[in-house]
Amino acid sequence: MSKTNQPVIILVEPQMGENIGASARAMLNFGLTELRIVKPRDGWPNERAVAMASRADRVLENARIFDTTAEAVADLQYVYATTARQRDVIKKTSTPNGAATDLRHQSQTGIATGILFGKESVGLSADDVTLADSLISVPLNPEFSSINLAQAVLLLGYEWFQAADDTPDHQILNKERPATKAELSYLFDRIERELDARGFFDPIINRKPVILRNMRTMFQRLGLMESDVRAFQGGVKGLSMKVKDKKNDGNHS
Amino acid sequence: MSKTNQPVIILVEPQMGENIGASARAMLNFGLTELRIVKPRDGWPNERAVAMASRADRVLENARIFDTTAEAVADLQYVYATTARQRDVIKKTSTPNGAATDLRHQSQTGIATGILFGKESVGLSADDVTLADSLISVPLNPEFSSINLAQAVLLLGYEWFQAADDTPDHQILNKERPATKAELSYLFDRIERELDARGFFDPIINRKPVILRNMRTMFQRLGLMESDVRAFQGGVKGLSMKVKDKKNDGNHS
Repeated sequence: MSKTNQPVIILVEPQMGENIGASARAMLNFGLTELRIVKPRDGWPNERAVAMASRADRVLENARIFDTTAEAVADLQYVYATTARQRDVIKKTSTPNGAATDLRHQSQTGIATGILFGKESVGLSADDVTLADSLISVPLNPEFSSINLAQAVLLLGYEWFQAADDTPDHQILNKERPATKAELSYLFDRIERELDARGFFDPIINRKPVILRNMRTMFQRLGLMESDVRAFQGGVKGLSMKVKDKKNDGNHS
Repeated sequence: MSKTNQPVIILVEPQMGENIGASARAMLNFGLTELRIVKPRDGWPNERAVAMASRADRVLENARIFDTTAEAVADLQYVYATTARQRDVIKKTSTPNGAATDLRHQSQTGIATGILFGKESVGLSADDVTLADSLISVPLNPEFSSINLAQAVLLLGYEWFQAADDTPDHQILNKERPATKAELSYLFDRIERELDARGFFDPIINRKPVILRNMRTMFQRLGLMESDVRAFQGGVKGLSMKVKDKKNDGNHS
């Protein structure tokens, strides 16, 4: 039985140790820690797997090894089979996103789940697929569908994690706050006053209202933060100063 | 300008050719074909990139190489920067899913977009981040966040593709159809008739209505397909036959 209420990741007859290690690493990025391996081709433990897993080696240390897929899923209650090609079986086929939603519901109701991943070369056998309750297929470019074992594990882990993650779609992590309308008005009034003082509008006085309205509209649209307004205030102040006469500048004369 | 109305994938100072190749391959799985590379450490072209890209080598052949990030984004109108750690800048930070929704809107309105990915060791520099309009950060296990360059490209490509993919969350791809209620009724009536004929209910006649109701409920719940009902019909027929007397069986007596 799953100890963690997470889906168990089950690699069936994986060929390369590197892919086992990369899968373990992909898992841990999304908090998945229960790995089972059916007949790893190069035996177990596998040094290449450990090297590739890097700091996720504890997932490998806790991995359980089985002789058959049937034994690997024996204590589970709902099993998914990942498949790259369409299978002519009467089973529900879900997207990773759809499966992740189901997995979260199953986890909440205490159902022990697992996800089967086939060997690199040919995927899962028809007999392995028969052991599963439903299928998962990743929608890919029909003209180029070529994701490897660890990438498939990564995408499933990603969807599992996102299904319970509450990070907002969009946020501003900086502590800054948007400018208030009063701050914007104060800035804008100053720009208008400085332009007026310099006679900027004199030759185009009939267009002044339109120009000012367009400028105000632009400033509204910019989504300025409080510190942006201060930066603009500084810029307006700087531009309003007299150009220095370099010859009379300072102590070197 | 993007020729395809897709986001341009921009790798900034990637170190290992393998990661460039794996990124190209990840891209093509999701229909992304426009790759730009800023100052690849080991020069260009890169044999290891080609070997790793495998059949996605045409993405590499069409890749454009730049000396600076500013030049690589010069013709773009909205640029995202992927970042693993929180940056103290006033920029919108989106999840891959949130960014993918925005990218699709931008694509539909003809805005040329790009996504910056930093070098393997340290990610994007602060100056590169400054060139971006907003940030993308992948929610990961806070205790183990370790996805590599090509995996980051994979996840962004995945979300980009899913955002426009209309594969249903769940479907049965097989051409089979669910059984009709008449087919179920016919099967069930036969089971009841055969059990009656054998006196199955005689010792438990007062519980017969409950047992039949429970069995009907179970059959309703099973979601049987038309061919499942036929398989059950065959099974009931088989179980209803007389056990063969082996000694009188056939031609060998």
